[in-house]
Amino acid sequence: MNRQIRIGVIGNGTNLISEPVVKISQEVGKIIAQNNAILVCGGLDGVMKFAAKGAKQAGGTTIGILPYESIDNANPYIDIPIATGLGEARNILVVRNSDVLVAIEGRYGTLSEIAFALKLHKTVIGLNTWELHKRSEIDKKIVKANTPEEAVKKALDIASS
Amino acid sequence: MNRQIRIGVIGNGTNLISEPVVKISQEVGKIIAQNNAILVCGGLDGVMKFAAKGAKQAGGTTIGILPYESIDNANPYIDIPIATGLGEARNILVVRNSDVLVAIEGRYGTLSEIAFALKLHKTVIGLNTWELHKRSEIDKKIVKANTPEEAVKKALDIASS
Amino acid sequence: MNRQIRIGVIGNGTNLISEPVVKISQEVGKIIAQNNAILVCGGLDGVMKFAAKGAKQAGGTTIGILPYESIDNANPYIDIPIATGLGEARNILVVRNSDVLVAIEGRYGTLSEIAFALKLHKTVIGLNTWELHKRSEIDKKIVKANTPEEAVKKALDIASS
Amino acid sequence: MNRQIRIGVIGNGTNLISEPVVKISQEVGKIIAQNNAILVCGGLDGVMKFAAKGAKQAGGTTIGILPYESIDNANPYIDIPIATGLGEARNILVVRNSDVLVAIEGRYGTLSEIAFALKLHKTVIGLNTWELHKRSEIDKKIVKANTPEEAVKKALDIASS
Repeated sequence: MNRQIRIGVIGNGTNLISEPVVKISQEVGKIIAQNNAILVCGGLDGVMKFAAKGAKQAGGTTIGILPYESIDNANPYIDIPIATGLGEARNILVVRNSDVLVAIEGRYGTLSEIAFALKLHKTVIGLNTWELHKRSEIDKKIVKANTPEEAVKKALDIASS
Repeated sequence: MNRQIRIGVIGNGTNLISEPVVKISQEVGKIIAQNNAILVCGGLDGVMKFAAKGAKQAGGTTIGILPYESIDNANPYIDIPIATGLGEARNILVVRNSDVLVAIEGRYGTLSEIAFALKLHKTVIGLNTWELHKRSEIDKKIVKANTPEEAVKKALDIASS
Repeated sequence: MNRQIRIGVIGNGTNLISEPVVKISQEVGKIIAQNNAILVCGGLDGVMKFAAKGAKQAGGTTIGILPYESIDNANPYIDIPIATGLGEARNILVVRNSDVLVAIEGRYGTLSEIAFALKLHKTVIGLNTWELHKRSEIDKKIVKANTPEEAVKKALDIASS
Repeated sequence: MNRQIRIGVIGNGTNLISEPVVKISQEVGKIIAQNNAILVCGGLDGVMKFAAKGAKQAGGTTIGILPYESIDNANPYIDIPIATGLGEARNILVVRNSDVLVAIEGRYGTLSEIAFALKLHKTVIGLNTWELHKRSEIDKKIVKANTPEEAVKKALDIASS
């Protein structure tokens, strides 16, 4: 692959995220940019905003795929906002446009993206995110990471393999 | 609500499902129809097909929301096939068109539908399906049921409340 | 084809339509139902509402494919409302779910449906609707009709051929 | 508006386009880039490919919104391919992501984009494209241009007004 790797960052999209999650998101975005990968996200608030902010501070490129009909509501750190008008269904476009994803905590929207990613055979690196259990067995498809560095390193390794 | 209740049935869409899952799916469909509710599903194979078959055997109505561009690939038990051409993104339309959902086992596609349902504040009744854990806590949003009767009864109670 | 024919009816979706258009819409819906075909439309107001009303008065079946996230805003003559949450992109689902279409006057939304239909090699019967010109040549793909009877007859002939 | 203007270029997406249309497309793309605007298109062949080629030769930025599930089929002149998996419904995303559009000849897909654009109150500049007639009256909403220079100039004037 000689195009730039695209890493999706998914997580809580509200501004209710905790200070540690703000820092982790920003750090993940920064390390993505430092490794010359493109950040893909949903373009709105919370984890998406701070990850995009981190990427921009490191001079990276950010794509935000919005649920809305116009690009006016993208957060200010999005270079390339894409308006869809599809509502929640835009989540699947975030997944389709990521070579690999990093999930930072997150709620049901994030879970829908994790599920779509696994369905499409894409890897999700998890930072304190959902664990999937099925009939008491833990599903191993989410690759755990403990730090932003580890998460992005694993994501890059997988995307370039 | 004086319109008919719509119950979504989600689960493994391949024909690799086990004999017990075939029976459970068919039974769920039958009981939905016997209670004068409409069955909504993805219109294809596996759990969707046997649930629709059960509903039709009991004289019910079935809606199948297909990922494809044409209605020709709906299973033969679908009364009202809806072609979307949206691929996997049709999963969210299955959820939007269900008042409540019953998940029968299932894999990642099913998980994406469960996640969308919970995001949209709809209840999912689970028959041996995914358990959601988050930081070691079990998420209680999927209401467990042990039999098709119990699952449909809980679904109807919630939809009519 | 041993399933029921589906005829899409498209036109101005606002309640600003003239009295003659109200009558034509209702008549088209009625004749569709009298011929045992299913009416497919966008489920909202204007031409869609009066066509669905006509179909219901003749005991027919009506499908309404809505732009909204919930089925609550369908007009009262829709038997099977389908919520999409896709906004204007739902127009293409109206086309995909019609074997043939009848366009009654209409504005730009109707034109988008006509264009999608022709792109998908489906026939559009036109009642005083758009004419398509390209470099001074009239495009003959919209089959003109002068009355509701003629429009539905032509639609049925094409769908069953 | 202090972000870059986005100009959508729409037209025949097959490689059957004539030599003059190849040249016009490439010229339109080049002039868009020379004016520091972003080219938005459907990312595939024909007019989209040559417009993107022209934009890249002038050092511009190109966004291609694809109907497919993966970005692998974008033409080689697309900087930012966006996979949608929505099939023809992606046409509306091309429109949503353009401040103004230039239509170069084109067939029914192009007509669907023109219709969506006019429905969304966006201007379309036409280079030998569809004329819209309604009950013998010519609709004036497509602004005619005779040369690539004139088309892009008019597009920029409208987008920045």
